[in-house]
Amino acid sequence: MGTIFVLSAPSGTGKTTICERLIKSLPNLKMSISHTTRKPRIGERDGVDYFFVDREVFETMIKNNDFVEWAEVYGNFYGTSKKVINELFQSGNDVLLDIDIQGAKNIKKTYPDSVLIFILPPSLEELEKRLKQRKEEIDTIKMRLNKVKEEISQYKIYDYLVINDDLDKAVKEILCIITAEKLKTNKVNQQIINNF
Amino acid sequence: MGTIFVLSAPSGTGKTTICERLIKSLPNLKMSISHTTRKPRIGERDGVDYFFVDREVFETMIKNNDFVEWAEVYGNFYGTSKKVINELFQSGNDVLLDIDIQGAKNIKKTYPDSVLIFILPPSLEELEKRLKQRKEEIDTIKMRLNKVKEEISQYKIYDYLVINDDLDKAVKEILCIITAEKLKTNKVNQQIINNF
Repeated sequence: MGTIFVLSAPSGTGKTTICERLIKSLPNLKMSISHTTRKPRIGERDGVDYFFVDREVFETMIKNNDFVEWAEVYGNFYGTSKKVINELFQSGNDVLLDIDIQGAKNIKKTYPDSVLIFILPPSLEELEKRLKQRKEEIDTIKMRLNKVKEEISQYKIYDYLVINDDLDKAVKEILCIITAEKLKTNKVNQQIINNF
Repeated sequence: MGTIFVLSAPSGTGKTTICERLIKSLPNLKMSISHTTRKPRIGERDGVDYFFVDREVFETMIKNNDFVEWAEVYGNFYGTSKKVINELFQSGNDVLLDIDIQGAKNIKKTYPDSVLIFILPPSLEELEKRLKQRKEEIDTIKMRLNKVKEEISQYKIYDYLVINDDLDKAVKEILCIITAEKLKTNKVNQQIINNF
């Protein structure tokens, strides 16, 4: 049985790069592709970056309880479909999800064995610096920093806390978390035990 | 606060080599030195390999509740002293213990945060082969194989299960377990959170 690994991180924490590296390192770890009502950007492909659906389809999926978690962000809907996750499990994969704290909570409710990892920047000052380098608006930066503070206050809902002060180190640590989780006695294939 | 990592493994599973490699890799991980009533063998040093004490001293320590766990093996006493563990914690270390399932259970009772790791040979056939290579007596081998079966039947008291079919891989996996355990939100230094 596969395991869901949820990564939550404030923007500017290097989450996208971390996810890419994890997927590259672990052939049995796959990103779950989200559904969204947002229009595709240039270069984005349906079924690869997202499943692009219109609002009516998305709302029907909500009604049918097809999502483990969904959220509205700046007027667009984003959701993680149970079917997508189950298909990944059935083909022998673990699942990586890149979602925020609210989504993480919902995942844990439906999949209690899922593993929640929170990635922190080295400090708020460092995060502010990184967001300024990206030339984000002052108001956006303020909003993001407040969101981080709020998320950090709830860090205990996460199983693990990784500080990204060094990208290579952070990636290694998350790879270790994934390796360790697969070695837990409750995750071990019963067949191995029966062989003794 | 330090963490206790318990390694249990049938003889012939490579446990001694694994412990040596772990200690070499992690400067803050120390083996706890046991007390024993066994006589020192040539080359063994008091306070390094064991604390060598006589039976009377050991029995007084039992009465004083000085041991987290102790056992009698072939007429000799072996025990893990609480004072030794606490001193390792106070100097900022994690503790590695090499003890059997009964000892592991007692450690978990006194230190509920301790992490129990069980190392398995690739198969019983492989273990039998390794024990025969060591030229162990047939009766000893039979007794050890029966003990392994009994221990494996209780594997669920352990947190993690590592199969030593490749020494380098097994060491890496245990290093990952130790890394991951130190990243758990309930082990993270509260100071880190307060900085945000």
